[in-house]
Amino acid sequence: MAPVRLGWASLLNMKNTALSELGQRTAEPPIAWLMKAVLDHPRLISLAAGFTDPQTLPVRETRRLLAEILGARAGGRAALQYGSTAGDEELRQLTARRLRQADESAGANTDIYDAERMLLTHGSQQFLYLLTEALCDPGDIVLVEDPTYFVYLGIAQSHGLRCRGIRLTPDGLEVGHLEQVLETLRRSGELRRLKMLYLVSYFQNPTGITTSLARKRAALELLRHYERHAGHPIYLLEDAAYRDLRFAGEAVPSALATGRLARRVIYAGTYSKPFATGVRVGYGLLPPELFTPAARLKGNHDFGTSHLLQKLLARALDSGAYAAHQQVLQARYAAKAGFLAAALRRHFPPGVEWQKPGGGLYIWARLPRCRRTGPRSKVFRQALAREVLYVPGIFCYAEDPARPRPDHEMRLSFGHASQAAMREGIKRLGAVLARLC
Amino acid sequence: MAPVRLGWASLLNMKNTALSELGQRTAEPPIAWLMKAVLDHPRLISLAAGFTDPQTLPVRETRRLLAEILGARAGGRAALQYGSTAGDEELRQLTARRLRQADESAGANTDIYDAERMLLTHGSQQFLYLLTEALCDPGDIVLVEDPTYFVYLGIAQSHGLRCRGIRLTPDGLEVGHLEQVLETLRRSGELRRLKMLYLVSYFQNPTGITTSLARKRAALELLRHYERHAGHPIYLLEDAAYRDLRFAGEAVPSALATGRLARRVIYAGTYSKPFATGVRVGYGLLPPELFTPAARLKGNHDFGTSHLLQKLLARALDSGAYAAHQQVLQARYAAKAGFLAAALRRHFPPGVEWQKPGGGLYIWARLPRCRRTGPRSKVFRQALAREVLYVPGIFCYAEDPARPRPDHEMRLSFGHASQAAMREGIKRLGAVLARLC
Repeated sequence: MAPVRLGWASLLNMKNTALSELGQRTAEPPIAWLMKAVLDHPRLISLAAGFTDPQTLPVRETRRLLAEILGARAGGRAALQYGSTAGDEELRQLTARRLRQADESAGANTDIYDAERMLLTHGSQQFLYLLTEALCDPGDIVLVEDPTYFVYLGIAQSHGLRCRGIRLTPDGLEVGHLEQVLETLRRSGELRRLKMLYLVSYFQNPTGITTSLARKRAALELLRHYERHAGHPIYLLEDAAYRDLRFAGEAVPSALATGRLARRVIYAGTYSKPFATGVRVGYGLLPPELFTPAARLKGNHDFGTSHLLQKLLARALDSGAYAAHQQVLQARYAAKAGFLAAALRRHFPPGVEWQKPGGGLYIWARLPRCRRTGPRSKVFRQALAREVLYVPGIFCYAEDPARPRPDHEMRLSFGHASQAAMREGIKRLGAVLARLC
Repeated sequence: MAPVRLGWASLLNMKNTALSELGQRTAEPPIAWLMKAVLDHPRLISLAAGFTDPQTLPVRETRRLLAEILGARAGGRAALQYGSTAGDEELRQLTARRLRQADESAGANTDIYDAERMLLTHGSQQFLYLLTEALCDPGDIVLVEDPTYFVYLGIAQSHGLRCRGIRLTPDGLEVGHLEQVLETLRRSGELRRLKMLYLVSYFQNPTGITTSLARKRAALELLRHYERHAGHPIYLLEDAAYRDLRFAGEAVPSALATGRLARRVIYAGTYSKPFATGVRVGYGLLPPELFTPAARLKGNHDFGTSHLLQKLLARALDSGAYAAHQQVLQARYAAKAGFLAAALRRHFPPGVEWQKPGGGLYIWARLPRCRRTGPRSKVFRQALAREVLYVPGIFCYAEDPARPRPDHEMRLSFGHASQAAMREGIKRLGAVLARLC
């Protein structure tokens, strides 16, 4: 019998990878897969992208603001030099003040809106990454909404975290279910691995749901109650990415407006989506004990976000250009959400449930449970064959042993697509659903 | 006896931290400490900062380039929209081409300069972070120059890595010492924990030393030889941050120009220092097996560097503005390095050794070994009392059981300080040294 030929690598027991555990865990994100679908179908109507409306991008305003900043020699030089790791002082102040004003109606404790606790980041995504890194070890548990923002699931997955889903109702987080999950974790002795509840609180990605202040308060009280069993603080990470994109309904104060309970709130916000996604500036307001570790990590990541971009945002806020642009956006997205809703009413079969949101970029559509929407489903494949793309709902659910991942929903975005594209896309999708459902 | 009163937290065995191991490990960076010294001494002459010369910042050019980009509607919108995670296609192409051209003299294998392997990041610091995260677990070993870039030591420390120092000679990395360290690791069975050699190859921070192509090749051959004992690839991470800031001497090709050996080279570069530090755009050219993990991590970090900044750099490169600015910088730093050297010749006592560099931002001064320069030393305190700041050499040395950390050197920067400030600063520092040495 001829000897088996072994390659040099296997002879020497050589791995072809030197990757770390994190590097090996980090999986392909669904977004890469969706982008590939876009590339493979150049005529595709994408209702999947979380991109903002190209026509609303503030090209002229940005040009003017940058010309002003770079028109003055001293200011221009400052903008082109390194800033500090935590961020530009002026922008930290302006951001803290805006947050305080937005919560004013709730009579919040104003000490908490302190620029000294404000960390500016390269988009709020970086802030979410830094916080997760600072708080969570592999095997730790994070509570998330069921469903939640799928890119956050990617961060959690790469860090080897276990996510547990908390159900949503039209008013936001289902507090009874939160209590049930906390109690289950207490009984199984896993509460000491629980680090935080990650909550996309405004016009949630993907469902469009907003969690009321009362529910945020109730959630914080529950977390506080279970801390004694955890043996350490349990934080609420409030991701308010879509707060500035409200076009209907009452303003809801943030979890920072909960008095003493706010000590456990980490607030993440962004200027990218409400101004220009090509300008990546986000921010976080942190409890003091977390500020220093997060700022040190930021120092290791990049020792500070581009100073030029921070100066641009500071000037946009200070000059009123940001507020003016927000109004343009709100009017635009109100119209586009209405347009998408009208198309859904007209073209989708009656068994499909959805709600018109008061802000954000998304409508979440639920098919009857028997009908799958995942990437290998008939619905998805037939939609793609008709050159229409949506985000399969299953991508937005964590792996959770308490339930199988629901697979009968879809996220539809009114952000990027034009009205004509939305109409045509929903018409085609409706035809697919009418035939299959 | 009265009962001891225990707080609620200690009664319940409550930790006041929920930090991860990474979060707990991440130490205060030396840079924070130096910045505090600057704040406490407002009249300080800082020869410590790695900031670039404010007078050379391209304020007018940046204004013009941005006005052009934002002057065209379609281009302006594209710049203000999200880009892709790996980076702007045009900038990846331009960057790959520039690298290939810079190495042309060495007759390099041109296949390796492939835009598909190019990852654009928020400064090259972010690239160093991503790579370290992708390759290294706590307890892993990274070889570094002795001394090395102190912010990299912060990344390594926060990840729980062990650094081992490789000595430098005026021609760069001491290859004999590298072999000795590799052999020691082989004997102790620790080679399987070795992931890479991190090398700041051009006008090194802090010493100003450049490692020749021959030494880079010899280092790669050694790493390759020891791979069989490691059981996995051992990479060379070449940090070429100062390559574009050469003002004297011959151009040295990168480690990418080593033919087959280049398969193990990870090349990190930046546009921030040679253009404007407030514009954070860096890049890395990666072996194919590392590109995907690094790009996925980048997706989790921020799904792509600010598109506006990338478009700015692409236009600066394409229009020739970048090359023109490089010439301005080179002339300026040549003059400033000469000026700092003249001041050292005049004011420093003869026992202090230093070398005039051919590029970069730093001169490294060595005192007699008996004389300490660390943050608690007489030299440092007396310098600070005279309002002069330098970077203590000890910050640039890894913790390495093979030797105590040397504490008789200082990093002096000719980047940010004016000529008048340099003259006065060196005069005062010279007086301190003359008295103490």
